[in-house]
Amino acid sequence: MAHASAQLWLGGDRFRSEQVPLPELNDGELLVEITAATICGSDRHTVSGRRPGPHPSILGHEGTGQVSASRRAGVRVGDRVVFSVTDTCGECARCRAGLSAKCLDVRKIGHELFDGGWRLNGTYATHLVVRPGQAVATVPEHVGDAVAATAGCAVATVMACLEAAGPLTGRTVLVNGLGMLGVTAVAAAKVGGAGHVIAVDPNERSRLLVDGLADDVLAPGQARGPVDVAIELSGARPGVEATLGSLDIGGTAVLAGSVAPTEPVDLDPEWLVRGWRTVTGVHNYEPRHLSGAVRFLGEHGSLLPWEEILGRRYPLEKLAEAFRAAPDGLREVVDIRLG
Amino acid sequence: MAHASAQLWLGGDRFRSEQVPLPELNDGELLVEITAATICGSDRHTVSGRRPGPHPSILGHEGTGQVSASRRAGVRVGDRVVFSVTDTCGECARCRAGLSAKCLDVRKIGHELFDGGWRLNGTYATHLVVRPGQAVATVPEHVGDAVAATAGCAVATVMACLEAAGPLTGRTVLVNGLGMLGVTAVAAAKVGGAGHVIAVDPNERSRLLVDGLADDVLAPGQARGPVDVAIELSGARPGVEATLGSLDIGGTAVLAGSVAPTEPVDLDPEWLVRGWRTVTGVHNYEPRHLSGAVRFLGEHGSLLPWEEILGRRYPLEKLAEAFRAAPDGLREVVDIRLG
Repeated sequence: MAHASAQLWLGGDRFRSEQVPLPELNDGELLVEITAATICGSDRHTVSGRRPGPHPSILGHEGTGQVSASRRAGVRVGDRVVFSVTDTCGECARCRAGLSAKCLDVRKIGHELFDGGWRLNGTYATHLVVRPGQAVATVPEHVGDAVAATAGCAVATVMACLEAAGPLTGRTVLVNGLGMLGVTAVAAAKVGGAGHVIAVDPNERSRLLVDGLADDVLAPGQARGPVDVAIELSGARPGVEATLGSLDIGGTAVLAGSVAPTEPVDLDPEWLVRGWRTVTGVHNYEPRHLSGAVRFLGEHGSLLPWEEILGRRYPLEKLAEAFRAAPDGLREVVDIRLG
Repeated sequence: MAHASAQLWLGGDRFRSEQVPLPELNDGELLVEITAATICGSDRHTVSGRRPGPHPSILGHEGTGQVSASRRAGVRVGDRVVFSVTDTCGECARCRAGLSAKCLDVRKIGHELFDGGWRLNGTYATHLVVRPGQAVATVPEHVGDAVAATAGCAVATVMACLEAAGPLTGRTVLVNGLGMLGVTAVAAAKVGGAGHVIAVDPNERSRLLVDGLADDVLAPGQARGPVDVAIELSGARPGVEATLGSLDIGGTAVLAGSVAPTEPVDLDPEWLVRGWRTVTGVHNYEPRHLSGAVRFLGEHGSLLPWEEILGRRYPLEKLAEAFRAAPDGLREVVDIRLG
């Protein structure tokens, strides 16, 4: 096959099928045949207009695929892989400081204009060109394509959140917001040794997802004691406020949901200082978190309620429909092998 | 001598000389003959009424002394020592979590009522009983008594701040507020490998203290680029706001000055999350920071402008006068051997 098929996003909820010639690879690049892509909430925000994005472009930044051509040492044709969202330069001050997620020359799959030298740069297509600055992790055989796809954004970000939270052994951990990241965070906190995990979401159906997994499952406002670690994934201002308010002395709040503007929240300096508290932000992740995500899914993925997490499966050609329909899970699946 | 002399604080700026019988020591306790005590800003706040404190009490929590009786393994009569402010239980959840500064049963020298079983519990006296839950560090011979005394509060707290800031190598570090802690933080940041240290204070005389030490010495509001690490020691709300506002992507703000109530500051969750920023509070310190403080003073103490830092020397009997006079340094010295 000399062409890839892609769903080109034209703005709003409009998509068009596009045939894209398969390019010659440069050093360090891979050509990956996508087998499954999952629809992340942020792609929904882009299509609904809540988040601006350049177009035309190929959306999709969670995906699993098989390497069909490799110019990267250590990655072979036939490897089943996931890949990082970010393509980083490795040379700027931020990359050198270990914060490659904020590389000064970062590009992100599913986020770039469809033009120039890197066109196959989203997972809603039959093929993706993985660039030299993207991390790649090999997927264990027993982890399914759609499950593995979540490693590339949701699960890797959760790994970054848990790292920022510090050691969890015996700690009381609050997870606020039970979307894909929150459900994963609850499971990962338990696996990480947390003594008590409290999961909070206003939506009853979301709460049911972690019913056997969290120690307490609460609606916002229900009584909860002070916690050692609070992970905020809702991005809603009241959620941020309640999360900060829940922190015990010595506690750490990890905020990761707030990726859209909100009104500021009040921070009481004396409360922070006398309480030796920490508030830290996490956005995207580092290569080690992608490897950690794949390892987590390989070893503990069965803890997660995939029947409820994974929604309908759509063939690539029906991508627009997947965005128009109400989601019936946390992650609708674009199954490239369908249809 | 069967009695100690102490300056008993009676509230306001009133003190009274008090003779206190030297007690029998319990297991783990030390009797220390104080040679010099330094007057910390927080004692000034107590005496001025800005900070409430129980009385009668013996104030003073920075001091150096010689061990005159020991019931603690590893500490011998004749050792010249400094000691931690906190006496901690070692058994509660916080102590076990490594946050002994917030011990649920904490007592602090210079902060306790003059009654009950532990009366010699402040450094404005000829003797101090060091309790089993207080850390002790031996002072190198070449470090003077008054200099060493600052280890017990100011310098150890700075060590805790730098630990919270993370690795400094090559980083741009802002220090806001050039009192005793700020001047020390500037020196310690340089010693810690910081690439560029910016020192900020509204007071010109304070700025002069770090003239040869910091790379840039600025008044608030003077232009300064984004920084990797910002250490806030003024406790003033505008200082906290400016410190947060100076943080680069990936940056960490350590707040330690805000030990009195202020209006809250605005925290923008998206700024924190997308910028992978961290805001953390530090109050008091752990035993390792006391050892680190003594090591810092022994190895690099000569970097600090002690001529300007140490103010007048007062004999113990003149303590009230030391509080009434305008300070002419960052630390007036109560020299127990005087008068």
